[in-house]
Amino acid sequence: MKQYQEMTREELQAQREQLEQAYARLQAKGLKLNMARGKPGADQLELSLPMLDALNSGSDCHDASGLDCRNYGELLGIPEARKLFGEYMGVTPEETIVVGSASLTFMYDCMARAMLLGVLGGEKPWCRYDKVKFLCPVPGYDRHFTICETLGIEMINIPLTEWGPDMDLVEKLVSEDETVKGIWCVPKYTNPLGGSYSDEAVRRLAALKPAAKDFRIFWDNAYAAHYVYEDTPLLNILEECKAAGNPDMVYMFGSTSKISFPGAGVAFFAASKANVDFTAKQLDAQAISWDKLNMLRHVRFFKDLDGIRAQMDRHAAILRPKFDAVLSTLEREVGSTGAGAWVKPKGGYFVTYMAPGCAKRIVQLCKEAGVVLTDAGATHPYHKDPEDSYIRIAPSFPSPAELAQAMEVFCTAANLAAVEKLLG
Amino acid sequence: MKQYQEMTREELQAQREQLEQAYARLQAKGLKLNMARGKPGADQLELSLPMLDALNSGSDCHDASGLDCRNYGELLGIPEARKLFGEYMGVTPEETIVVGSASLTFMYDCMARAMLLGVLGGEKPWCRYDKVKFLCPVPGYDRHFTICETLGIEMINIPLTEWGPDMDLVEKLVSEDETVKGIWCVPKYTNPLGGSYSDEAVRRLAALKPAAKDFRIFWDNAYAAHYVYEDTPLLNILEECKAAGNPDMVYMFGSTSKISFPGAGVAFFAASKANVDFTAKQLDAQAISWDKLNMLRHVRFFKDLDGIRAQMDRHAAILRPKFDAVLSTLEREVGSTGAGAWVKPKGGYFVTYMAPGCAKRIVQLCKEAGVVLTDAGATHPYHKDPEDSYIRIAPSFPSPAELAQAMEVFCTAANLAAVEKLLG
Repeated sequence: MKQYQEMTREELQAQREQLEQAYARLQAKGLKLNMARGKPGADQLELSLPMLDALNSGSDCHDASGLDCRNYGELLGIPEARKLFGEYMGVTPEETIVVGSASLTFMYDCMARAMLLGVLGGEKPWCRYDKVKFLCPVPGYDRHFTICETLGIEMINIPLTEWGPDMDLVEKLVSEDETVKGIWCVPKYTNPLGGSYSDEAVRRLAALKPAAKDFRIFWDNAYAAHYVYEDTPLLNILEECKAAGNPDMVYMFGSTSKISFPGAGVAFFAASKANVDFTAKQLDAQAISWDKLNMLRHVRFFKDLDGIRAQMDRHAAILRPKFDAVLSTLEREVGSTGAGAWVKPKGGYFVTYMAPGCAKRIVQLCKEAGVVLTDAGATHPYHKDPEDSYIRIAPSFPSPAELAQAMEVFCTAANLAAVEKLLG
Repeated sequence: MKQYQEMTREELQAQREQLEQAYARLQAKGLKLNMARGKPGADQLELSLPMLDALNSGSDCHDASGLDCRNYGELLGIPEARKLFGEYMGVTPEETIVVGSASLTFMYDCMARAMLLGVLGGEKPWCRYDKVKFLCPVPGYDRHFTICETLGIEMINIPLTEWGPDMDLVEKLVSEDETVKGIWCVPKYTNPLGGSYSDEAVRRLAALKPAAKDFRIFWDNAYAAHYVYEDTPLLNILEECKAAGNPDMVYMFGSTSKISFPGAGVAFFAASKANVDFTAKQLDAQAISWDKLNMLRHVRFFKDLDGIRAQMDRHAAILRPKFDAVLSTLEREVGSTGAGAWVKPKGGYFVTYMAPGCAKRIVQLCKEAGVVLTDAGATHPYHKDPEDSYIRIAPSFPSPAELAQAMEVFCTAANLAAVEKLLG
């Protein structure tokens, strides 16, 4: 088939008619499908069900240090959890804090504490500045942006490629402006583009010379082990920061939300020992301890890093056919028309579709045919995608059959929007 | 025996010698005992062990609305948990948010959000004021005071009786000063005095006419069901606030920390529907959902309010002999000398000992004989007890045998400190 851009006006009009008819037929089905959020599917959740047997009324509930996990104590997490999830993050137990059940909540917390109380090496709490700014590689994760927007932190868009943020721009902004206090990074299978930061990107980030003494890289390594097709190597940012003489410049975050149970897993924070000590002091006002029984449950179930890796193999086996379905449908239905482009991710939870000037219209068409996508613009600060181009497709939650239907709607909408745009 | 105050100098000197010898003998035992924190004992934790069987790999993990508790969702908590813990707090499910595993963390959160984002009805976030003040009934809970101190909120001492705070003073300060933004209350078996707020105290609090439109009563009902000797009635503050035309003036907090597992229970927040809606909107930046599997575990184990009450009967049966031991030893060893006074609590986790001018010395003597108590001064903001009088004794964690030893040390120290003080 001819690509839309090569078609005459008449050919495009014929396409529009066909697509409108196809769309009307799909609309008539009264579908109710959701590809909006990166939620694991029920089959993935089954994988962790045996964890619920890891602690029962006959279990010894003491941790490796002999502490009773049923009682208060150990603000930074039980030793075996700090060890396992430290290893998972590539750091020592002393560089790890294991907290509640969501890394997002701890990221918000770190940002809120920075605002209210300040950061190691800083002169004053961030809320004492007239303005504080954060660099936001785009497209990015909407919930990161919501944290900044809620706390009144000004966001600056940084173009993101598959291999990392535009480092020339990052270096310039960070070295010039004392109120640029940090950058959000999803370094592996980045949300939503799917690529991973190159060695060069990680090294240049680690070697930044910020004007702000309390600059922090918020390194949300949410998908550290979450390959779908292939495990991508990623440099250890904390090691690189140490090597570059910036040991305190990075906060790393992770969780088992997409390894065990979303919202009922454990989350962790990794940073230099100095940052961990500083954070622990601040946390002391905020918590006595987090859920140590759940930490114990996780450690006893996974046992070690190999246990986590084996679990991730099982997740990948479930996710792969879903990603296949999305990618092959896109290839077949949209690849042939040139309506848009997409990145084939090696892992993570998303496929990003790009069609300048069409994103809002596609999301609207999908919605009106019963297929919910993340709002267009959600990939950008303030919900403003200046190119109206990016759509994040989340294939994990629907069943393969639902996914096939939803992608049929999506591709029809994508093609229709492209034709409409060309016809003006 | 004669009371110390009636003794001659010579008699007191003889007492001192005797007490010093007794103290030296105790010191020689090399004890290592802790009455510092309100931690449940291991026997109390056993009571909730069967809860760990409430969810296993064969369980249906859906909530009453059909939501899969293993996945993201339901930011405000699952319906059956909002119902049960709402009932526990005396409010509707719509007036309840069930959150993570610690009410202290949520109190900190509420305060941090008030500082950063503001409170319903407020003009601006509290951190935008030059100064924000909180009223602190004393003696009170050290961790409340730490939250204020950490966030830079100025604390004003309010004398607390067994029946509630000095309401004349509260009414005066609250109505005069727009920067007085709230008051901490532990209304039942108050930490550490042990008394409960009278109907009059609750009604006068509910009827406050604050100068600040965003004034909040932080109502930490930590011991709502935690009787030891007798369940004390307590008026429902939210109802009273509604009746007084102040429906949005109170935030209520509670948790199962001392019902199920400290740090691994569930915590809850109760307030007017308007406050819940306002809070939910702010929380949306901070969390996707809390641990719903743990909520489900709790609801399935306790079933209903009667289930919680039955559990509290079992806790009381374990705690009563411990409180008996503390109180009878005090009666026998200190009652006879008049070295100090204490309140016999009806419930809660503490016995407060009062001996003006002696608290620091007693804590030091105990420490040097191997018995750790909460620091003197911890009952007051900024760790400053102006009378150096209050000591919080926590009898729950040690075994009865340990408690007997620890109380022997305590009473010897208390008597010795009193005699030393009289001798000048």
